[in-house]
Amino acid sequence: MAQVFNFSSGPAMLPADVLQLAQQELCDWQGLGTSVMEISHRGKEFIQVAETAEKDFRDLLNIPSNYKVLFCHGGGRGQFAGVPLNLLGDKTTADYVDAGYWAESAVKEAVKYCSPNVIDAKTIVDGKRAVKPMRDWQLSDNAAYLHYCPNETIDGIAINEMPNFGKDVVVAADFSSSILSSPIDISRFGVIYAGAQKNIGPAGLTLVIVREDLLGKAHKMCPSILDYTVLNDNDSMFNTPPTFAWYLSGLVFKWLKEQGGVAAMDRINQQKAELLYGTIDNSDFYRNDVATANRSRMNVPFQLADSALDKLFLEESFAAGLHALKGHRVVGGMRASIYNAMPLAGVQALTDFMKEFERRHG
Amino acid sequence: MAQVFNFSSGPAMLPADVLQLAQQELCDWQGLGTSVMEISHRGKEFIQVAETAEKDFRDLLNIPSNYKVLFCHGGGRGQFAGVPLNLLGDKTTADYVDAGYWAESAVKEAVKYCSPNVIDAKTIVDGKRAVKPMRDWQLSDNAAYLHYCPNETIDGIAINEMPNFGKDVVVAADFSSSILSSPIDISRFGVIYAGAQKNIGPAGLTLVIVREDLLGKAHKMCPSILDYTVLNDNDSMFNTPPTFAWYLSGLVFKWLKEQGGVAAMDRINQQKAELLYGTIDNSDFYRNDVATANRSRMNVPFQLADSALDKLFLEESFAAGLHALKGHRVVGGMRASIYNAMPLAGVQALTDFMKEFERRHG
Repeated sequence: MAQVFNFSSGPAMLPADVLQLAQQELCDWQGLGTSVMEISHRGKEFIQVAETAEKDFRDLLNIPSNYKVLFCHGGGRGQFAGVPLNLLGDKTTADYVDAGYWAESAVKEAVKYCSPNVIDAKTIVDGKRAVKPMRDWQLSDNAAYLHYCPNETIDGIAINEMPNFGKDVVVAADFSSSILSSPIDISRFGVIYAGAQKNIGPAGLTLVIVREDLLGKAHKMCPSILDYTVLNDNDSMFNTPPTFAWYLSGLVFKWLKEQGGVAAMDRINQQKAELLYGTIDNSDFYRNDVATANRSRMNVPFQLADSALDKLFLEESFAAGLHALKGHRVVGGMRASIYNAMPLAGVQALTDFMKEFERRHG
Repeated sequence: MAQVFNFSSGPAMLPADVLQLAQQELCDWQGLGTSVMEISHRGKEFIQVAETAEKDFRDLLNIPSNYKVLFCHGGGRGQFAGVPLNLLGDKTTADYVDAGYWAESAVKEAVKYCSPNVIDAKTIVDGKRAVKPMRDWQLSDNAAYLHYCPNETIDGIAINEMPNFGKDVVVAADFSSSILSSPIDISRFGVIYAGAQKNIGPAGLTLVIVREDLLGKAHKMCPSILDYTVLNDNDSMFNTPPTFAWYLSGLVFKWLKEQGGVAAMDRINQQKAELLYGTIDNSDFYRNDVATANRSRMNVPFQLADSALDKLFLEESFAAGLHALKGHRVVGGMRASIYNAMPLAGVQALTDFMKEFERRHG
C-alpha cells in the first residue's frame, strides 16, 4: 500500500524508525528471549531502559539539575488533579488562564481542591481568535501557582511567550501537545507535564518535570500515584510504571537526538507549519480562524468554505493515505496534527492533496 | 536460543501466540498502514477493539449485567485510593483484612481517607504461615466496605474462600495477581480490581469491575481519573486510555477463550501448582513456608535449605532459560510466578532443573 500519513491528534503518529525497531525486538529484546514488556521494572535491564530514557529526555530539553523528572500513570487529566494536590500547600486559590478547551478542563478539575481565579485570556484580533499577551493577565495576590496550557490541541491555539512573572510566581503548564517540539526555558516553570500520546510515545504514560523545592507539600488526601514526592522518592517506581510506554518513549528520545534534537525539530516544525498555513491562507477555499501570532504549529484546524464538501474531503484524503483529518467535534471541519513524528513529506502530501481537491471542487 | 520461561511476578510472561500476533501487526494494524497505538481512541476502529475486549472479559468471568467494567490508569496502587474515594460515602471506616504485603499496603493508603478497622488474619497452622478462615474475621458494624487481597504476590499466600457475609457487606478485592486464573462468583463482590501486568496484559492498565448501585458516591476530592462514575459515564474514555495495553489485553482475552476459558485455565493452573509444590515437598533441599490450604497457585516462593546456594541456583537456572526466579527482597529465596501464560512445560522445565540441581548440590 501507499505510505500512510496519520494526522491523528493523539494517540498519534510515531516515528516509523521507532516502530520498526520496536517490532523487530518485540518478542526477543536484547537477546533475553523475552519481550521488554514482560520483564520486571525492578530488574537491572529495565532500570537501564528507564535511566537512559530520563537522561535523554533531560538532554533534549536541557533540564536543570534542580528539576526532577517523573514517569507517571494517569495522563494529562490526572495532572489536572495532581497539580493542585501537590502545589496548593496551605493556599486556597490558584490562577488559571483560560485560552481553550484544555485550560478550561483543568479548571473544572481544580474546583475540587481550591477556588481558582480564572483569567479569561481569549480575545479577538482582526476578526481572528487570539490570546491576550501575558502582560495583560491579571494574576491574583494569593495564588499558589499560575496554570496555563501553551498549546490547545482542539482549538489550534498556541501561547508562544515564555512566562516571566518573577521568581515568586510558580508556573504550571500543560505541554501535552507541544513538548519537545521547540526549546523550553525550563527555569521559567515550577511544573511542566505532558501526556505521552502526542509528542512522546504511546498513551498511558505522563511526564512531569517539577522543581525540587516544590516537593514535600502534597495534600494529605493526594493519592500516592499522583504525589510527586512519593514518585520522586521511588524513582517513579512506587508502583509498577507503564513499562512498555516508558521503553518506547526512550526509543523516541534516541530518535530525536539522531535527528538533531529539539532545535532541529523546531526548524522542521516551522517549515511544516509555514507550508500548511501558507496553503490555507493562499486560498479562499480553506480557512483557519486563529490569529497569526497564536497559531499552533502542532495542531492546525481548518475549515472548507463549503462545509458540504467536508465528507468528500475526508473520504478522498483517507483514500490518498492521509488519515485522521476530521476536526474535533466541538470545532468541526478539519484538523491536521503535525507533531514531531510527522515528516515534512507528510505535510507536502497533504498540501498537494488540498490544492488538487480545491482544483477539482473549488 | 533455547526456549525461555519467564517466572517474573509482574510485568510478567505473556502468551507467546499473543506477542507474535502483536509483533506481526505492530506497524500495520488491520491493513490501516498505521500501528494500533497510533490511532485515536475515539475512532470506530479502536472503539471496536475496546468493546470486543470488554465483551470477551465479561464472557470469561461471567460478569452479571449489573456490573460495570472500567479500563483505568493507575495500577492496583491507584485503586488503593480509588476504593475508599468511591465507596466510603458518608462513612468513616472500612474493614481491611491483612494477610500479606499488598493488603497491608492498601491500609497505608486508606488511612488518608478513613480510619480503617484492620483485621489481622495472619496465623500459623502446623508451623506454616496461614490465613484465618473468613468466619473468624471480626467485621465492624459501621464499615463502608470490606477490603481484602485474595492472592498475595509476594508472600505466596492465597485466600480461596469466596466471601459470604450477606448482602449488606460490600466486598472490595484486589485480584491483581489471580484474576482469570480460576472462576470467580462476581456476585459476591462490590468491587474487583486488578492491575493488568500479571494475568491480563502490559503494565499501565487496570481493570475494575463495579456493581452499578455503588456508583454515584465518589468523594468530592476524588480525582476524575479514579472516579468510577465519571469513568463509567464515559465508557472509560474520559481521558485517553492506555490504548496499546487495552488492545493487547484484548488479544489475551481471545487467547484465553481459545484455550477453553477460565475453567480450562483453572485445571492447568492446578496441574502446574501440584507439580511445583510436589517437587518442593518431596525434597529436604527445597522448602515452602505456607500452609497447604493457603498456598498460592500463582506465586510460589521457595527456599533452598542452604541459602549459600541461592546465587548459584539463580545463575544456573537463568543459563537454563528459567528467568526471574529471585524472590522478593522482603521474603528472600526464590519465587516462581506461574500465571496463565506460563505453560505446563515451563513448570516441568523448572522442576526438572530443580531436581537436577539438588542431585548435583544436595
